[in-house]
Amino acid sequence: YLPNVSLQWIIVQSGFFSFGAGLLTYKLIPSVAELTSQANLTGMDLNKRGDPKFSGKKIPESLGICVAVVYLVCVILFQTFQWFSFPETIQLSEYNAALTSICFMILLGFGDDVLNLRWRYKLILPMFASLPLLVAYAGGTTVVVPDINFPVPLREWLGMVFDLGIFYRIYLLMLAIFCTNSINILAGINGLEVGQSVVIATSIIIHNLIELTIASHSPLSTAATNSAISTVSPHLFSLILMIPFLFTTISLLFYNWYPSRVFVGDTYTYFSGMCFAVVAILCHFSKTLLLFFIPQILNFLYSVPQLFGIIPCPRHRVPKFNPETGKMEAIPTNLTIINLLLMITGPLTERKLCVYLLIFQGFCSCIGFGIRYFVAPYFF
Amino acid sequence: YLPNVSLQWIIVQSGFFSFGAGLLTYKLIPSVAELTSQANLTGMDLNKRGDPKFSGKKIPESLGICVAVVYLVCVILFQTFQWFSFPETIQLSEYNAALTSICFMILLGFGDDVLNLRWRYKLILPMFASLPLLVAYAGGTTVVVPDINFPVPLREWLGMVFDLGIFYRIYLLMLAIFCTNSINILAGINGLEVGQSVVIATSIIIHNLIELTIASHSPLSTAATNSAISTVSPHLFSLILMIPFLFTTISLLFYNWYPSRVFVGDTYTYFSGMCFAVVAILCHFSKTLLLFFIPQILNFLYSVPQLFGIIPCPRHRVPKFNPETGKMEAIPTNLTIINLLLMITGPLTERKLCVYLLIFQGFCSCIGFGIRYFVAPYFF
Ligand SMILES: [Mg+2]
Ligand SMILES: [Mg+2]
Repeated sequence: YLPNVSLQWIIVQSGFFSFGAGLLTYKLIPSVAELTSQANLTGMDLNKRGDPKFSGKKIPESLGICVAVVYLVCVILFQTFQWFSFPETIQLSEYNAALTSICFMILLGFGDDVLNLRWRYKLILPMFASLPLLVAYAGGTTVVVPDINFPVPLREWLGMVFDLGIFYRIYLLMLAIFCTNSINILAGINGLEVGQSVVIATSIIIHNLIELTIASHSPLSTAATNSAISTVSPHLFSLILMIPFLFTTISLLFYNWYPSRVFVGDTYTYFSGMCFAVVAILCHFSKTLLLFFIPQILNFLYSVPQLFGIIPCPRHRVPKFNPETGKMEAIPTNLTIINLLLMITGPLTERKLCVYLLIFQGFCSCIGFGIRYFVAPYFF
Repeated sequence: YLPNVSLQWIIVQSGFFSFGAGLLTYKLIPSVAELTSQANLTGMDLNKRGDPKFSGKKIPESLGICVAVVYLVCVILFQTFQWFSFPETIQLSEYNAALTSICFMILLGFGDDVLNLRWRYKLILPMFASLPLLVAYAGGTTVVVPDINFPVPLREWLGMVFDLGIFYRIYLLMLAIFCTNSINILAGINGLEVGQSVVIATSIIIHNLIELTIASHSPLSTAATNSAISTVSPHLFSLILMIPFLFTTISLLFYNWYPSRVFVGDTYTYFSGMCFAVVAILCHFSKTLLLFFIPQILNFLYSVPQLFGIIPCPRHRVPKFNPETGKMEAIPTNLTIINLLLMITGPLTERKLCVYLLIFQGFCSCIGFGIRYFVAPYFF
């Protein structure tokens, strides 16, 4: 099914490590939640203000730090294991660049949760965190020109491929900054940050598995099936980073789901966004990643007037909780797709609102797959 | 003087970047100190208890985070710059492994400062942070057998070189854990943690410069002077990591020197220890590093009965401040070389105590250089 036994075996092993990491996360979260509470890292649940069942309750914040550290330990352990068992399948410079970027981003997220950094630092620092990725990025900087003849015959003008050179790396940098921030602004509902990460990670894993399967069946690779070329496929590397991410994130979702017993903090949203950016950049599927980020892109575009200060932007742009009906009501001046959805559907409970948004995320992923595998081939 | 122009040029450029990083650190510390104070990361100065000039004053803690983040940004920027200008002088996998280990250690140190981790995590987690180093470690695992004939003719028994195999990597792991913790336990006096780091970093930089100079004069290298062999010398890499460390640390020392306006936190001691471990491991001078760690080794050995619980160990093992004389007095049951020194010299002011300890550190470095360059050649 997959290219060769050792490749399947690596994926299964990664699954074992990730399962362990997931269990460990599940076990550690309550004690880390105690530590963050003692450190005064707590928050009130804005969407339950006025609900006597929850009123005045302080929820532990920044539990992303627990998930992120377990994730790092898991990936580092797997790196060591893989280097012992299948040394020919590792590209150390990219592996360590990925770890550097993710770890630096976790540090910045946690620093932000603890120290409340100013906006300018939040925008500048992710750029530095992404630089090691761009340096380690070994792929080409050319793009295949789409086979479009309207309004101009593109391929006649630009040739089959077009070298973007340094601009390609600038595009990758922008992608990393977008990913780390876009999850952070589609947030504020119990379980939404973690839930959307589960959907995106699942989509990426499915995409990687499809690509590995296609590669194993393509006539080109049959001769080289057992050679290094197919085993160090970038999609294998993406799986190695995404499977532990998915497992640890699912553990977090148990605690963060409505009604949240823990909050995840900027630590988690930055960590999650950077993980996605890292795999997309190092494993060369940045355009496909954007297809899985459709809700985040829509939310960002819809938010632009507030983000750039054209319309006043409150600190939290969540909808309003109505304690009498127990439902969330839209605040149309808060330009997020959360409020947009509520304007379409009318008031919803917080749990239902989150479920609807996640279904929308999953639906967009399906559209993304359709575009990637059925529409794109017509143009390339 | 040095192997070739481009090598000297890289070092000078690194100096420019580092100088900028030092200035930035100096400028940022006051505002980051405000942020850490607001986050309740503050500490009382134990050595001034009872002194009316200082009583009840809360000092901002964990300023290591500022130094460490500026350091990371500087090294990442220099990596990008070096990759643009001198791509043939970079070994990316080791570069990124260094960044991963240092960054993970900073995260753990800051996590410890904020969350007060339990002892077992403090001992286990640095091990994971060091694993990427061991995986990326590309050097040999053999040691040259010393030319000693008493009590047994070692070289006749073991041969000229002896392959330690996996045990060499275990030794490196132990070294990393020792470095990160040994600076943390030789602490508690204003300016001591940072001061000893300045002395050790300076010693390492001198050692690297000596080695690069020797390499440029050795008959072996003259033919290959301009080739890749000499330019990617591990000692160049060590300089690239140590020069920014020295500059940012000196900026921190301005604020941490007696009387301390900021404290550095576990963030700094872990960061500093890991930086030393990283360069020693990846640049293959682990034994020389231990020569610069003589005071830390003595302090560790002297502390062993308390660290392993044979003698009760209080939370802080600093000497006692006598508000009447304004001097520090030894507490002989606190087994640190700080108290040992006070038992020899009698009571000292805190400033003098720190200066004496730093002179001792510098003196030990000189002995280290003597052993490295005059004694060791007789045996190898
Ligand atoms: Mg924040
Ligand atoms: Mg501590």
